Amino acid sequence: MNKLVLCRLLGLVAILIGGSMAFSLPWALPVLGGQWQFEQRGFYGLVGSMALCFAVGGLLRFWGRDSRGQLFLKEAMAVVGLSWVLATVLGSLPYTLSGTHRAPDVRMSVVDAMFEAQSGFSTTGATVLTELENPAVVPRCILFWRSSTHFLGGLGIIVLFVAILGQGSAGKALMRAEMPGPSHSSQQARTQHTAWVLFLVYAGLNALLTVVLLFEGLSLFDALCHAFGTMATGGFSTYNASIGYFMTRPDLYNGPLIEMTITVFMFLAGTNFMLLYALVIFRPKRLAADIEWRVYVALLAVATAAIVGAGLWNHDYVHNGMVAAPTDAVISEGLADEDLGNETEQRQSVLQATRFGLFQVVSIMTTTGFCTDDFDRWNSFSRGVLLVLMFVGGCAGSTGGGLKVIRHILFAKILGLEVEKTFHPSVVRPLRLGGQPVEDQDLRKNILVYFGLIGAIFTLSWLFTITVEPNSTWTDHGHNHEHKLIDAASCVAATLNNIGPGFGVVGATKNYTNFTAPSKILFIWLMMIGRLEIFVILVLFVPSFWRWQ
Amino acid sequence: MNKLVLCRLLGLVAILIGGSMAFSLPWALPVLGGQWQFEQRGFYGLVGSMALCFAVGGLLRFWGRDSRGQLFLKEAMAVVGLSWVLATVLGSLPYTLSGTHRAPDVRMSVVDAMFEAQSGFSTTGATVLTELENPAVVPRCILFWRSSTHFLGGLGIIVLFVAILGQGSAGKALMRAEMPGPSHSSQQARTQHTAWVLFLVYAGLNALLTVVLLFEGLSLFDALCHAFGTMATGGFSTYNASIGYFMTRPDLYNGPLIEMTITVFMFLAGTNFMLLYALVIFRPKRLAADIEWRVYVALLAVATAAIVGAGLWNHDYVHNGMVAAPTDAVISEGLADEDLGNETEQRQSVLQATRFGLFQVVSIMTTTGFCTDDFDRWNSFSRGVLLVLMFVGGCAGSTGGGLKVIRHILFAKILGLEVEKTFHPSVVRPLRLGGQPVEDQDLRKNILVYFGLIGAIFTLSWLFTITVEPNSTWTDHGHNHEHKLIDAASCVAATLNNIGPGFGVVGATKNYTNFTAPSKILFIWLMMIGRLEIFVILVLFVPSFWRWQ
Repeated sequence: MNKLVLCRLLGLVAILIGGSMAFSLPWALPVLGGQWQFEQRGFYGLVGSMALCFAVGGLLRFWGRDSRGQLFLKEAMAVVGLSWVLATVLGSLPYTLSGTHRAPDVRMSVVDAMFEAQSGFSTTGATVLTELENPAVVPRCILFWRSSTHFLGGLGIIVLFVAILGQGSAGKALMRAEMPGPSHSSQQARTQHTAWVLFLVYAGLNALLTVVLLFEGLSLFDALCHAFGTMATGGFSTYNASIGYFMTRPDLYNGPLIEMTITVFMFLAGTNFMLLYALVIFRPKRLAADIEWRVYVALLAVATAAIVGAGLWNHDYVHNGMVAAPTDAVISEGLADEDLGNETEQRQSVLQATRFGLFQVVSIMTTTGFCTDDFDRWNSFSRGVLLVLMFVGGCAGSTGGGLKVIRHILFAKILGLEVEKTFHPSVVRPLRLGGQPVEDQDLRKNILVYFGLIGAIFTLSWLFTITVEPNSTWTDHGHNHEHKLIDAASCVAATLNNIGPGFGVVGATKNYTNFTAPSKILFIWLMMIGRLEIFVILVLFVPSFWRWQ
Repeated sequence: MNKLVLCRLLGLVAILIGGSMAFSLPWALPVLGGQWQFEQRGFYGLVGSMALCFAVGGLLRFWGRDSRGQLFLKEAMAVVGLSWVLATVLGSLPYTLSGTHRAPDVRMSVVDAMFEAQSGFSTTGATVLTELENPAVVPRCILFWRSSTHFLGGLGIIVLFVAILGQGSAGKALMRAEMPGPSHSSQQARTQHTAWVLFLVYAGLNALLTVVLLFEGLSLFDALCHAFGTMATGGFSTYNASIGYFMTRPDLYNGPLIEMTITVFMFLAGTNFMLLYALVIFRPKRLAADIEWRVYVALLAVATAAIVGAGLWNHDYVHNGMVAAPTDAVISEGLADEDLGNETEQRQSVLQATRFGLFQVVSIMTTTGFCTDDFDRWNSFSRGVLLVLMFVGGCAGSTGGGLKVIRHILFAKILGLEVEKTFHPSVVRPLRLGGQPVEDQDLRKNILVYFGLIGAIFTLSWLFTITVEPNSTWTDHGHNHEHKLIDAASCVAATLNNIGPGFGVVGATKNYTNFTAPSKILFIWLMMIGRLEIFVILVLFVPSFWRWQ
């Protein structure tokens, strides 16, 4: 392995991370609304982190100054995996150096800071911070850094998707023939073109959403942070109640409008960006013809209908208390079930159920993780559907995590073909996608291996969590430790698939702050593995990978 | 498809089922301890069922009298799948015709009876009967029929294993080279030899266990029923408290001795019968050298240590009430935790924990499903480990269900090779088992497909269960409906892997009686699919399978 090239590229990553911290600095200044007495530790923490990043980056580039030659497969994998690890370490510096508190009187440990940084870069949105709205606990400039890790992570994934996944045989099948480009023969030019298109779509949507949110009454700070959280399918908010906050303040915001805006943009963030580009250049048929996108829309529709139906049946949206929407005032006055016969309220309840249900389904399936309602209080069926949606994820070529819709389509088709093969062993049928055969030598096996690895990692991580996490993590914070098995499963699913919130102890209104360090370290690893589609992280733990040739 | 051959063979199955019912008749007679006033409906129900079986069998054989020619792959699969379905229908007749009650005042429905029959044939041991010990509710001769379905099911699996699985390429790899036989060239003679060996081992162990249990004080009826339940890895008992019953009667039985005996025989029932045969013909090295057997033993040991350790730490075995072992008298008098400093009791507790833990781990992993303690009251970690063990199962070539240890070994090795392949794409390494390459063209893909299907079936069945099962199934019977998600997962795992008991609403002291009919039908299908290793049942639902050629 070419160590020098590795150093040089990792050095570049360190410098870029350091440079991007500069954009968080202004938010500490009084001119942009910062209260200097709270912000100064954030400001100096960020400055210190930048200095460290530049020092590390400079040193790495100095070591690697004589490097030349090509990047082979192993080096490329090592660069991606180690960059992500390095980004996590460097991205956690602002939290530790500024002495940010995860609760009013508890400082973030190194593990806490790495968890928060990894959650940002992997666009998960799981947090250990309990008081986002108090600048004495979490300075505003640190909050901005937190949200900008989402933007950087989403960007990184888009670049990686083109650079790495677009190369392999399975990657090509995932990106499909719709990928435009100047010429089919020139692979590199086409890759560069794709990278630019994806970048422009991503940056453009971020800018658009920011502007829309500004018009809807958010401050520039809130608009930027929520745009980053939405378009990267991240889920970090600047309020404890997530998007639900805007509905608790009918005096300041038009909550439902903001909710619908973010629903639409989450939906776009989970769509293949190449298809959005096709839309922009007036080729909407390409979007409508895409089999993955059609399944993505169908799944969202079916899940929403199921959850809204089950929710209404079980009066889920009536008893909830996380978000008191203005029209719910009557409920908080203690209205019993029987009194709800009133037709207006019933209609209101259907509308509200549809809004809450749709938002949550889109938020979970695109792996964003924003909340408007405490879905942990919903009925078991709805929660079960959400748990399954966590493993679905967005479309390939989007910033969404999870297994991706296209893999599920291929998985179902492969299993169907294999069942048929048991009684027609001589019939060889190609794998088809939208009428086109997509067979390549290894695709079938690769998809099966991917599902196998996800299943194995999920099961072992679940076992690890229930082993190391004591019952007191539940009982000390008012939770029932009998829910440990399902709560732990939801934690693992929510981090492995980069969603964020889970059930019970990590429910919509809760967070990961009370977990022990070993579990947090596992979750950091799971977020990384989920975001980078397993292999580049897993190989870092294979000894033979590190044997220099 | 050759319909006539199908009819003839299915007719044979019907006649065999009818004939085997004859062995249940004597238990209704006063000379063998039956109380005629309760037994007569069971007796006449069995006679009626036999008549129906013979009628159906005769008719099918009459239709198929002109059949000739070979069985091709499709016919063979149809015969196996449909035989199992037919056996379930015919095997359920004694329950319905005798008017057996699932609870003191509730008659078994057709679905209940099919559930009980399928649970027997598939050696699952899940039951809808709530009062086994009252002959006015469940006659003794029906109870014997229930246990004999285990014996027949175990026998059926052994025959099928040789006839079907031994033929396919993956089946051969699962059976491995250790399989003895007169000649390597004569496939048929070797298969016949294997079938005889497996049958003799199975029948011999059943007889041996019956004799041992007789010596330990059980009646012939109890000894036979529990031998059937043990050797088929079934789990039907003749007492509500399962094996725990023998510990509640220290006046009559040496409970711990019976418990240890059954532990040993469950362990043997989960071992490859070919290896037991090797042991009998004085080749114990073959057993010790077998990689699957070694992993099987290692997994049992590790799981037992973990569960005993966690159980002692959480005082699981102290607070439990299902089985009041004689030495626990002091506990039922209200001894608090702090008073347990007494060294003798602590030692007693360690011994008891080891006994209970070992028994339950062996019972769950071999997919038997007997209980001596209410493991549903154990801590979450222990319950989580048991849930994972449900998917492990016994060794190939045993009567144990689940995925089988060998598949897990191959799965782990395949995933490892595939991860290595991502950074060494040009290196082709064969799959090895105990030093020998076991590669064949399709083995890798087949193992991955099997795990994929199990995962997909598990997830969809879980979704189905939480959709159709109302909260009242939990709340009406004193259970917390917040446990619906994990309870439903355990039901699906326990039926798909042919274990029997699960958690909560189907816990060690509970049963499947309160589920709605749609769920029971799903579970019947799951038990079938799990027992016949998916494909022969799944293809029955593929339309193109039924296209006559």
